[in-house]
Amino acid sequence: MGDFKAIGKAFVEFYYNKFDTGPREGVAALYEPTNGMMNFNSPDSAKGAQEIAEKLRSLTFQAITHTVSTMDIQPTYDNCIFIVITGVLRADNDPPMQFTETFLLRFINNSWLVINNVFRLILHG
Amino acid sequence: MGDFKAIGKAFVEFYYNKFDTGPREGVAALYEPTNGMMNFNSPDSAKGAQEIAEKLRSLTFQAITHTVSTMDIQPTYDNCIFIVITGVLRADNDPPMQFTETFLLRFINNSWLVINNVFRLILHG
Repeated sequence: MGDFKAIGKAFVEFYYNKFDTGPREGVAALYEPTNGMMNFNSPDSAKGAQEIAEKLRSLTFQAITHTVSTMDIQPTYDNCIFIVITGVLRADNDPPMQFTETFLLRFINNSWLVINNVFRLILHG
Repeated sequence: MGDFKAIGKAFVEFYYNKFDTGPREGVAALYEPTNGMMNFNSPDSAKGAQEIAEKLRSLTFQAITHTVSTMDIQPTYDNCIFIVITGVLRADNDPPMQFTETFLLRFINNSWLVINNVFRLILHG
């Protein structure tokens, strides 16, 4: 686990590259297939790769670009990897929006898979 | 674990109340004493309750108030609780600042303790 920071950083780059080059529902394969959870700017969770793919397909924007501003990576007590991102995204022709995204990754069958994930836009009051 | 959302919400209220009424280093008792980790607006981690308390004592503001805007709570595969907050804080007479904070809580010796925690201010470019 000495390399948890390198693994976390590589995962985040891979995830956003896959999301941004599309089709974005391709990232569903990076979640634990049955129990992986995603909250996408909502307190309600999609659970499992199929529900997550459906949720991602239902989003209405076409083009998107994520730019990472900060990345914090910690190991957990049981060798999972805890990652917190803040950044800026551009969706279609909308103004840039700030976001935060958190991932918990677990090593399962030789792959690092997402078991928990929350994405939130930062709203300006 | 049916109550994980209620537990998470109660934890967050307790944590920010303790942080805001002070002394803020009192929240260090809510972390797993040896291995609990905190990144406080930095990629470097404080580890264990003592380092966390020292980090919190070193912060230069006096008065602080956290206001929660969004709270996402998920159970993990091994019955931990994963919490992502976005919100606004006021420190001394500074303008309000947006922040995000993530906690991973584990049930240890009859208490929910923080094992991983990242706090980040949202910077406006």
